[in-house]
Order: sequence, then C-alpha cells, then structure tokens
Amino acid sequence: MTQDNLELRSTITADGMLRINLESVPVAAPGKGQLLVRVEAAPINPSDLGLMFGPADMTSLKPGGTIAAPVLTASVPERGLAAVRARLGQSMKVGNEGAGTVIAAGPDLQHLIGKRVAMIGGGMYTQYRLIEIASCIVLPDSASAAEGAALFVNPLTALGFVETMRAEGHKAIVHAPAASNLGQMLVKICEADGIDLVNIVRNQQQAELLRGLGARHVVDSSSEDFPQQLEQAIAATGATLAFDAIGGGEMTSMILNAMEAVAARDMDQYDRYGSTTMKQVYIYGGLDTGPTILKRGFGFSWSIGGWLLFHFLNRTDPAIVARMHERVAAEMTTTFTSHYTARINLTQALQPDIALAYNAKATGAKYLLVP
Amino acid sequence: MTQDNLELRSTITADGMLRINLESVPVAAPGKGQLLVRVEAAPINPSDLGLMFGPADMTSLKPGGTIAAPVLTASVPERGLAAVRARLGQSMKVGNEGAGTVIAAGPDLQHLIGKRVAMIGGGMYTQYRLIEIASCIVLPDSASAAEGAALFVNPLTALGFVETMRAEGHKAIVHAPAASNLGQMLVKICEADGIDLVNIVRNQQQAELLRGLGARHVVDSSSEDFPQQLEQAIAATGATLAFDAIGGGEMTSMILNAMEAVAARDMDQYDRYGSTTMKQVYIYGGLDTGPTILKRGFGFSWSIGGWLLFHFLNRTDPAIVARMHERVAAEMTTTFTSHYTARINLTQALQPDIALAYNAKATGAKYLLVP
Repeated sequence: MTQDNLELRSTITADGMLRINLESVPVAAPGKGQLLVRVEAAPINPSDLGLMFGPADMTSLKPGGTIAAPVLTASVPERGLAAVRARLGQSMKVGNEGAGTVIAAGPDLQHLIGKRVAMIGGGMYTQYRLIEIASCIVLPDSASAAEGAALFVNPLTALGFVETMRAEGHKAIVHAPAASNLGQMLVKICEADGIDLVNIVRNQQQAELLRGLGARHVVDSSSEDFPQQLEQAIAATGATLAFDAIGGGEMTSMILNAMEAVAARDMDQYDRYGSTTMKQVYIYGGLDTGPTILKRGFGFSWSIGGWLLFHFLNRTDPAIVARMHERVAAEMTTTFTSHYTARINLTQALQPDIALAYNAKATGAKYLLVP
Repeated sequence: MTQDNLELRSTITADGMLRINLESVPVAAPGKGQLLVRVEAAPINPSDLGLMFGPADMTSLKPGGTIAAPVLTASVPERGLAAVRARLGQSMKVGNEGAGTVIAAGPDLQHLIGKRVAMIGGGMYTQYRLIEIASCIVLPDSASAAEGAALFVNPLTALGFVETMRAEGHKAIVHAPAASNLGQMLVKICEADGIDLVNIVRNQQQAELLRGLGARHVVDSSSEDFPQQLEQAIAATGATLAFDAIGGGEMTSMILNAMEAVAARDMDQYDRYGSTTMKQVYIYGGLDTGPTILKRGFGFSWSIGGWLLFHFLNRTDPAIVARMHERVAAEMTTTFTSHYTARINLTQALQPDIALAYNAKATGAKYLLVP
C-alpha cells in the first residue's frame, strides 16, 4: 500500500535559480514503530524559511507551472550561492515540525490510528508523513492540530535557554526580540520558575502584549533612550546572559555594552581591560542576515556563540531533555500555546504575494501551513 | 630614605582633555619582600598605549609645559569619553613590564642588590620602581636590561595560547597578525612543541621573516587570494582555534568562514545550520579599534570571546603557570627574545612626533622606553 502525496520541495541550481514546487511523492505503508500521519498543520518558522528560500532575491519571485502543478521561482545572487554550495541541485524537503492525524500504523502501533500526534523531523510541508513514533508526541483527544503543530522547536528552545542559564551559572536572561511566540513562552516559563527576564521588543504594542503575560522587564528598542532602559533592566536583574535571534546589526553589541556598563559600576578602580564579569550572548537566529557589528566597549570578559536547539539537545543530559518534553506535553495549552495570524495551504504557499508576506518574519505575524 | 623619581602619568579629564606628564613622585625604601629597582628598559606594548592615550584624537597632540616638566596634551572626542568614564580625572601610571637593576632591597633580599630583574605589575614608565619580589624574575648576570624588559606579557601570552589550545581540545592554531614579537615567539614554541600554526601576515616581507624562523604555514592577508590561501592552510592543519589581535574589521569573520568551509568538506549532506565542528576565535587585542564585522556564514557551532593574559593566569592551574614561567626563564635569549627598532627616554616619549610613531603599532616597529 502506498499513499498518493504532494510535498513541498525547494531546489537551488548551480546557475542561480531557486525553484519551489509540489512534488508528487507516494509514501509507503508504515512498518514497525512507524506511523502514517495526515499532516493538518505545520508552522512556518524562520528556520524553515532559511531552507525554503535560502539566499534568493525575494524581489524576483515569479509564479509558474500550471494550476495543478504550480512552481515558484526566484533568482539567487552570485554571492549568495557560495553559502549554499552543499545543497545545489538537491530537491530539499521543508518543514521542521507539524501535527496531524494517524491514518495508518505499524503492527505494534495500531491503537494509535485516529489519534492526533505532534511531530518533529523535517519534511512536514507535505500531505502525508511517514514517521517514527520516537519523533512524535501523542496528543490528548481534545487537542486541535494547530495546538499540536509547534510543540517542539519553540517550546524546547525556550526551555533550553533556561537550562543553558542554569548550566552556565547565570541568574537572569536578556531576550531579543521578545514578543515572538517563543518569547511569549519564555515570559511564562521565567514567571513560573522565578527567573528574571529582560524582554527587548520593537514597539509599545509588543511591550503591552508581554506585560499582559506578566513580563516585568520590557524595553523597547525603538525608544530613543533604549540603551539607558536596557542598562537599567540589566542592573535590576543582574543578567549576564542573552539570547539574540536578530543576529545582524548591533543588538548583540548593545547588550554586551550594557552588561559591561552595569558590571563597571561595581569596580573600585579603573581597569583598562574592563570588568572581570563574564558576559555571554548566544545568537540563535538570523532575522537580520546582515553582518553582526560588535563595538567592543565591553572589555575582555565576554563570549558570543551560536546556539542551536539540535546541538543543545545532543549535548544535554537525557534526563533533562526528558523533563523538558514532559513539561511541554503537560503545559501544551497554557505555557506553550502558539498564535497564528493566517492559515495557508500548500498551493497558496507558492504564490509570490503570500510568500513575501510569510517570509517577512514580522514579530506577531505567524503563518500556519495547512496541507 | 626616599628616592627622587619621575614617572609618566596619563590623565583624561571630564571635559575631554588627555594630559601626559612626568610626575615627581618620591619612592619609599623597600620593606620586607620588596626591591627598589632602577628601571632601565620597558617595552611599549599595544596594551600600554591603550592606557596611555585612550580614545584621544592623535591628530590633536600638542607639546606643552617646560623643558624640565614637559606635558603632552590631546583632545578626547565626546563619544570616546563614555568608554573611559571610570578613569576620568585620575592620574594613571603606565607600563605593564620592564627590567632594571636592584639598587636597594628589603632586609631579606639584600643579596639581590646589584642584580638585574625583570618585572611585571604596571607603572613601569618610571625611573625607579618599588616592587614585590613575587612580581620579578631575577636575571642571569649576562642579561641586558633590554633582554629582560619583555619577559612577561608576550612570552606568557604566547605560551597561554598553546595551553588554551590543549585545555579546549583543539589541535592547531591560527594567529593574526603573526609577525609581531609575540607572533615570532609563537612560531618558535609551536615548532619546538610540534604544533601546527597558521600565521597570517600583512606582507611578503613578514612572510619571509616567519619562514626564516621555521614557520610552515604563512598566509598573506594582502594577497588577492587570501581567503583561498587561508582555507588551504586551515585544511592542512585542522585548526579550529584562532587568536586575533586585530579585533576590528573582518579578520575574525574570515577565519571562522574559512574554518567552516573546511568543516563542510566532510559533511555527507547539506545542513542549513552548518557543520557541527566547533570553531573558536579569541580576540586578544584591538590593533583595529573599529567594530568587529561578522559575516555569519559559519553555521551555529562557533564562539568568539575576549582573551586576556591576566584572566587566563587567574583561572589556570598554578602548576601550569609555574611551568610557563620556568620555560620563559630558560629560553629568555632564544624563544623569547624581542626586537626593538628604537629606544626613547621619558622626555622623548612626550614629543608629539615620537608619540605618533610609537603609537602607530606597525608590526616590526617596536619601541623600548629607557627611563
């Protein structure tokens, strides 16, 4: 038995063309330990967009193909090609995570047919997904597909920040930008766990949103006195650890300089090498793909690094990871709820105007793919 | 008994004026465990210049005072003042290290009178220095003051790089810029210890200099194909650790991107998050005080941090530090010899044209202060 199936694919060719299409790929019947899931919801996360569009010039998006088999194309600038050398010519599946209903199961998992599951593992922008049970969470009957669609990446990332804080001996966290679905989860986790959190938002509307969730320290990067606000919040919380998903521009640098200014308040004499307070920023995304600009006024006790959920999970004690999974399942509809502003299907995902909209990565505008 | 003494001082005022003068500061007689040393040589290192001139506008240097009491002044731009807030109005002593002859000693150290010592501890741009014996190395009778003047900062930093490599599990080192006195020491250490070292130099003359010392991997950042050369040398050595004293500009970024390109060669499939090879760059100086520009094409397994000798020594096993000191003493005239292109006295240090010259931090142009 195989199941007819359309799945979204992204290909970049060596001559600089991006091609997104819907590929007809029959899926096989599930074997032992496997489920065949009808995908009902999959979030479009920034990390998915990175794979889907790569370094393509988004102003060059063009519709093509037929109504039955639409294609979306764009050109990839010469200088962007080097960064994706390793994927050239490959038809890549897209979509980190999703949720759906089990329509067939291996002989050992027949009792799950009809149940709804949350899934992680890539290739979720598809109608049907054959998947190992180990990559699933079985959802309660009351859960909708939308509620289960984003139970891995954002929840585990937010919990991973807190575990990183504990493992590295920091006592508070700075987060930018803080009004995202992930940021809202982090506000709730920190409130529940008694951890001070400095939330950097981009406007007053986002500040109100987070305050409504209980956030105590919210600073607005669009304010004229943002550096002063940031320094005050860091002084109030003692934060020496930050997570920055912006990546490009000066946010990381501003956070480090504010932390150093706070540390310098406690120095009894001038030291040309700065404070001995260790300041750490992790860049965990690239909402701004431009260069990171570091204005090094923060002494010599600092570190900036990449932070990736999958690397974190690999290096962390499995007991801690298991505890994280349990918490996500238990708080699915409270702490770890996600909000979506629009739902689109696979065909709509290939329309240039819609693609431009969901690729804008505007905080608060979150798309759910409904295949 | 006190000793008449002139010492170099640097003051930045709240209204934006840098003032360098020679202060008459009598020094007290040495007590138990102390030596009174007539300073005969002190190197002018980039870290000394940072304290001496701070963020002053070097085009505004002006001579002043009298022949007997010369003063050098410059203006400090408004935006530079914030970074030195903690030192405003303070008359700072300058000079990390130096060497000289013991002219008086505490009751327990009388046998050292007439001996030459190397010293660390700041305030070395002075005629006489009262110092604890713990901050000194007693030199052999054959050693000149110039030979003993720079036995702490550069030698221990070069050895610290190698110890950092060992502690963090890397197998080779990239160094920029590599033709400095410190870089030459590192070439000799790595050659002796069988460690692969990638030397980044700024011109062919420097490349020849290092090859003459036995350097095997030398790449010239002024070549058009520098990125390719760098990638090849990193591939040949397997270096995943670098030390960068330039700080500003794109060197750190270029090193990380080259390391990632090498790591990507071993990946059997494309991963949008880059390789899992951990890449570390330490910024240990700021020859270019401009912003560090990171073009993040190096995935998520990377870290950039500040590296400072004094922090390293504080966190390192004292047995390792003791071994480092012993090696410096044993190889003083071989591995750890420094070269100077000019010698100046305290009064000359306050002349604008000479100050501009020694502040230029040109690799290969090294000044020795002879108080």
